[in-house]
Amino acid sequence: MSQAPNLPGLNAIEEAAARIAGHVHRTPVYTSRCLDELCAAELFFKCENLQKVGAFKARGASNAVFSLDEAQAARGVATHSSGNHGAALAMAARRRGIPAHVVMPATAAAVKKEAVASYGAVVVECEPTLAARESTLAQVVEQTGAHVVHPYDDPRVIAGQGTVALELLQQVPDLDVVVVPVGGGGLLAGVATAVKALRPATEVLAVEPAGADDAFRSFGLGERVPQTSPDTIADGLRTSLGELNFAVIQQRVDTIVTVPDAIIVRAMRLQWTRLKTLVEPSGAVSFAGLLEHPERFRGRRVGLVISGGNLDLDQLPW
Amino acid sequence: MSQAPNLPGLNAIEEAAARIAGHVHRTPVYTSRCLDELCAAELFFKCENLQKVGAFKARGASNAVFSLDEAQAARGVATHSSGNHGAALAMAARRRGIPAHVVMPATAAAVKKEAVASYGAVVVECEPTLAARESTLAQVVEQTGAHVVHPYDDPRVIAGQGTVALELLQQVPDLDVVVVPVGGGGLLAGVATAVKALRPATEVLAVEPAGADDAFRSFGLGERVPQTSPDTIADGLRTSLGELNFAVIQQRVDTIVTVPDAIIVRAMRLQWTRLKTLVEPSGAVSFAGLLEHPERFRGRRVGLVISGGNLDLDQLPW
Repeated sequence: MSQAPNLPGLNAIEEAAARIAGHVHRTPVYTSRCLDELCAAELFFKCENLQKVGAFKARGASNAVFSLDEAQAARGVATHSSGNHGAALAMAARRRGIPAHVVMPATAAAVKKEAVASYGAVVVECEPTLAARESTLAQVVEQTGAHVVHPYDDPRVIAGQGTVALELLQQVPDLDVVVVPVGGGGLLAGVATAVKALRPATEVLAVEPAGADDAFRSFGLGERVPQTSPDTIADGLRTSLGELNFAVIQQRVDTIVTVPDAIIVRAMRLQWTRLKTLVEPSGAVSFAGLLEHPERFRGRRVGLVISGGNLDLDQLPW
Repeated sequence: MSQAPNLPGLNAIEEAAARIAGHVHRTPVYTSRCLDELCAAELFFKCENLQKVGAFKARGASNAVFSLDEAQAARGVATHSSGNHGAALAMAARRRGIPAHVVMPATAAAVKKEAVASYGAVVVECEPTLAARESTLAQVVEQTGAHVVHPYDDPRVIAGQGTVALELLQQVPDLDVVVVPVGGGGLLAGVATAVKALRPATEVLAVEPAGADDAFRSFGLGERVPQTSPDTIADGLRTSLGELNFAVIQQRVDTIVTVPDAIIVRAMRLQWTRLKTLVEPSGAVSFAGLLEHPERFRGRRVGLVISGGNLDLDQLPW
């Protein structure tokens, strides 16, 4: 497989792994005989819901924060986020001892603002529109000189997320297929880069909610189409695919499939019941891919990334 | 500490560990900086909710089943249970390839009957009274010659449950206190036996729901009083303390405290949110003890047993 010179490579992921060791967890791989029997396959769940801040985002944010030189770092970091990336960046900044500014819509759940604030970050509230988020972030940067860390369209973030696959392939070397949810595409791009460099014969299969299927459509068309009006319970996957991420994905991903929300909820509940682990809707999308497309996986050794476990226990979808 | 000759000892627990290795999981120990900060202590959660059948009961049942000689085993095993012990005995019997008969009240949740049946056991329904359960079990034994395995008042079961502490002390040797929920007392008796044999200076502290506090009262009085009309969300801890268990507990347990149900629910929810792991109400009782009696634990290294993770996701207590 040819590699465009500007795409992140295995080196960057290996460097990220060394850089973030000690700052993030090496997460466990769960197995379940019951779920293996249900799917007629051997399943290996990489539990990024047990990662710091409850999601793989801790990896990319930590790699970005610890990549900064001293002068850059001293001015702090900033982002806009209503989800896991904000908490991850705040956590990484606290570990480096630098300021973090997280722009969040005023309508974000109080529990999410508290999570970010609990890591010592400054929460800057704004109107709940993308325009307001971007202009508020620009203001923060102008006032503080903080360095912006994008949640997914950034080579340092992609490399950090790729460490998920580096670990998984150490824990379970002989996988036939690795299954990853796709939203902005940082996790997918990083995982695909690691897998295709280390085990080119292993299939990289992405799963996307049918109600936010821009990656599926972009992959099929060969050109990036934005996500408009997403409608899915998987709130972490409503974003449009990033530009750099799309370039990586075109080169290194084998397959993208979609799943309806009802199957995402079924997958989530099965994982809660059988693995005894909390999986957020976005985190259950990889397993939903198996339930929706069982014929693709029968008899195979399947690695599945559970991307996160943060959700409101008062708003469960059943 | 003197030891009455008929109480189970460390030997029995070490033999149990060898006997059940390969049939049950070595469960992980979870930590959380956030919960450590909340409690001003170092917490080590022994995750028996990730045990086979979702509870520590797999250990005692496996030890009992694999202790039987060939002739006994061939006639199968039997018990009455509306909870985790029935599933555990069914699982262990399947692994040994022998029949299991589990007497369950007709009113038990369908999901519980299905769980037992899914391990290949015969579910025998009866009226939902203790008298009916016992007479139905006696009938089963008469018809089949099956060997009855009591859920907790049995030295083989106590020894099996004690392997929880054997593992925990290997995983975290220098604990100041080990915290265990108490219902029938099998887990507590086993854990106390292992801890006091291996690390006599480590405190063994049991926690009981205030609405089913017969162990607390019995321990204080120095004589066993039965539990009548239990009223607690912790359905696994509504039973009366077993006779043998009480004898062990009197010798080897340092402290028993009680907790109200509201704190059990708070503990459960905090564990779900922070550890991302499913804990049933009974399983959250040990951590509830910390929340209710923080002064006992401040600055100490605390091992806590999460005893199980089986519950109905449609009946959450919030």
